Amino acid sequence: MVGAGQLARMTHQAAIALGQSVRMLADTADDGAALVAHDVAVGDYRSLDDLRAFARGCDVVTFDHEHVPNEHIAALEADGANVAPSSSALRYAQDKQAMRERLTELGVPCPRWAPIASTEDLDAFAARVGWPLVLKATRGGYDGKGVWVVGNALDAAAVLASGTPLIAEEKVAIVRELAADVARSPFGQGAVWPVVETVQRDGICVEVIAPAPDLDDELAQQAQALALRIAHELGVTGMLAVELFQSQHGLLVNELAMRPHNSAHWTIEGSRTSQFEQHLRAVLDYPLGVTTPTAAWTVMVNLLGGPADVTPSGLDERVHHLMAHWPDVKIHLYGKQFRPGRKVGHVTALGADLATVRRRAGEAADYLMNGDVAGGSTR
Amino acid sequence: MVGAGQLARMTHQAAIALGQSVRMLADTADDGAALVAHDVAVGDYRSLDDLRAFARGCDVVTFDHEHVPNEHIAALEADGANVAPSSSALRYAQDKQAMRERLTELGVPCPRWAPIASTEDLDAFAARVGWPLVLKATRGGYDGKGVWVVGNALDAAAVLASGTPLIAEEKVAIVRELAADVARSPFGQGAVWPVVETVQRDGICVEVIAPAPDLDDELAQQAQALALRIAHELGVTGMLAVELFQSQHGLLVNELAMRPHNSAHWTIEGSRTSQFEQHLRAVLDYPLGVTTPTAAWTVMVNLLGGPADVTPSGLDERVHHLMAHWPDVKIHLYGKQFRPGRKVGHVTALGADLATVRRRAGEAADYLMNGDVAGGSTR
Repeated sequence: MVGAGQLARMTHQAAIALGQSVRMLADTADDGAALVAHDVAVGDYRSLDDLRAFARGCDVVTFDHEHVPNEHIAALEADGANVAPSSSALRYAQDKQAMRERLTELGVPCPRWAPIASTEDLDAFAARVGWPLVLKATRGGYDGKGVWVVGNALDAAAVLASGTPLIAEEKVAIVRELAADVARSPFGQGAVWPVVETVQRDGICVEVIAPAPDLDDELAQQAQALALRIAHELGVTGMLAVELFQSQHGLLVNELAMRPHNSAHWTIEGSRTSQFEQHLRAVLDYPLGVTTPTAAWTVMVNLLGGPADVTPSGLDERVHHLMAHWPDVKIHLYGKQFRPGRKVGHVTALGADLATVRRRAGEAADYLMNGDVAGGSTR
Repeated sequence: MVGAGQLARMTHQAAIALGQSVRMLADTADDGAALVAHDVAVGDYRSLDDLRAFARGCDVVTFDHEHVPNEHIAALEADGANVAPSSSALRYAQDKQAMRERLTELGVPCPRWAPIASTEDLDAFAARVGWPLVLKATRGGYDGKGVWVVGNALDAAAVLASGTPLIAEEKVAIVRELAADVARSPFGQGAVWPVVETVQRDGICVEVIAPAPDLDDELAQQAQALALRIAHELGVTGMLAVELFQSQHGLLVNELAMRPHNSAHWTIEGSRTSQFEQHLRAVLDYPLGVTTPTAAWTVMVNLLGGPADVTPSGLDERVHHLMAHWPDVKIHLYGKQFRPGRKVGHVTALGADLATVRRRAGEAADYLMNGDVAGGSTR
């Protein structure tokens, strides 16, 4: 696995049961997955030499993030390496313009959008969709980075002036955000989990509710079918997360990710097969596992580093209290240093009553991050 | 963790979520846990020097097996190491005579037994309980090793002649075997799972059914209370497995283990908190997690190497078919070479109907071991 963050860490955890041991290409020896995996290489995912040395002897090469240059992935493939997802699929998760062009071609509902090469392009697009609108860097964005909501031509010009290749999208009036997570094997088998609601704050996912409450059955099936179809059309191997806007006029695709994704962390406890096991099954060309839910409701809340520092022993004390107060809440720590806003872990609660499950997960997360349950929560 | 077999392997898996990384003292670099853990020392668990070097810098030292000399554990404690379970608790899982003496003192129901130092001792015991009877090596036995069912004085004399320190036990007429698994924290908190039925073949556990079918509520509560009481009286920290005989006259304690135990592998999927997470919580002095079952029935079947060899690629092909035919069955491979009778993994199935769950787990395991579902199964 190229990249050794929390996704690699949790993938390694799932690999152990399958009798596998995941080799990691880590940026540093302190990366979350590097701390717990046996076979760790430290190297630069932007260096083809490092990638080649790393891929040698791997049954299959897969990814913890989208930042490996697509031409390097293609070079590995030309060397004969088994890479999943392939460079030709992954480009649609790496390049937002390529993604929008392809989805538009496929007739998949998207927000109105345009490539922006000049102020003229932007003016023309703004005349069509109005202000505010959204500018997105075509490459390298994540967790709200590389995305700007701009209210007028002046603000937009400042983003344009940076020279970053951009696309513009209409700012959709949304009811909420959803995600449809699927896995696809090279053989073409697909597996789909229930559609979830993802709650965002400042462009970062803070909470995932599975299944999405009060979601119309027909819309849910539409979202699942859409995700399976995109996986098929783009030739994805492994996990595909389709982030969706639910609007008054139906579903629109927001983003794609071709790897285990935050919107499906709930599957570790909430589904008979977790997204991490499923990703491994898919990229290793094993048949996929059942996605049956293990509870009526599962809620995952991200642990985002609070404004105040916490020492390791202070954190340990909080973990102690959390386990005492919320013995039913499952904790996942990523082995990361705390920094304000940084995803350092997540918690999961499950049960029959949504309000209870949501409250318990939310309170436990608030407590762990802030040392109290009032916290800054908007839940 | 001293010892790097499958118990250590699955403990490491659970540790990842808790933000921990388990250091392993492995016999060889190929041990199951050594293949997947980051921090592996290869050394001899019978060498105090190796144990001391290993323990340095560990928050707590715990065990994958009972074979570390008790005096070495006491020496680590004298050095100031935090060891869980302690030498004074662990001796009752290491020495069957000490265990029987202590349980008898506590009034815990056991098979009739006697220490055997001579032919005279044996004759006297046989006169009391009759033939056949059971001889057990006081130390070092596991999975049917170190246990002899002997039908007469001649056969018994042959075992005695080996010079192994022994105890004798009556051969109890049993209805079935059960296990009560509990965890205890240093603080004295206890957690208990439903009592399970363990199905044995040739002295090796082949199948575990959770909860034990048709077990009288009162007997189940008795077994749980007994296990919690033993954990308390012996001062156990971590997991305690109490293997029980169910006889016409009630419950009798067969064996004790103070570590994660085969009888609780089902908890990985079948309980909100697995025995591996619970063992870590206990030895790290964290509050324990809830043991709520995730399904009405959970069945675990051990993967015991079949008589015929299987190549790695042959095994991989079987895994492929298993996943296709039994997408609901969860597989756990320990990274071990196949040898006839060796525990190389286990499978788990869960659901609402016991007969279905048992059949699916049993068939999947037979198929993986023997390449067909008829297999040699007695189920």
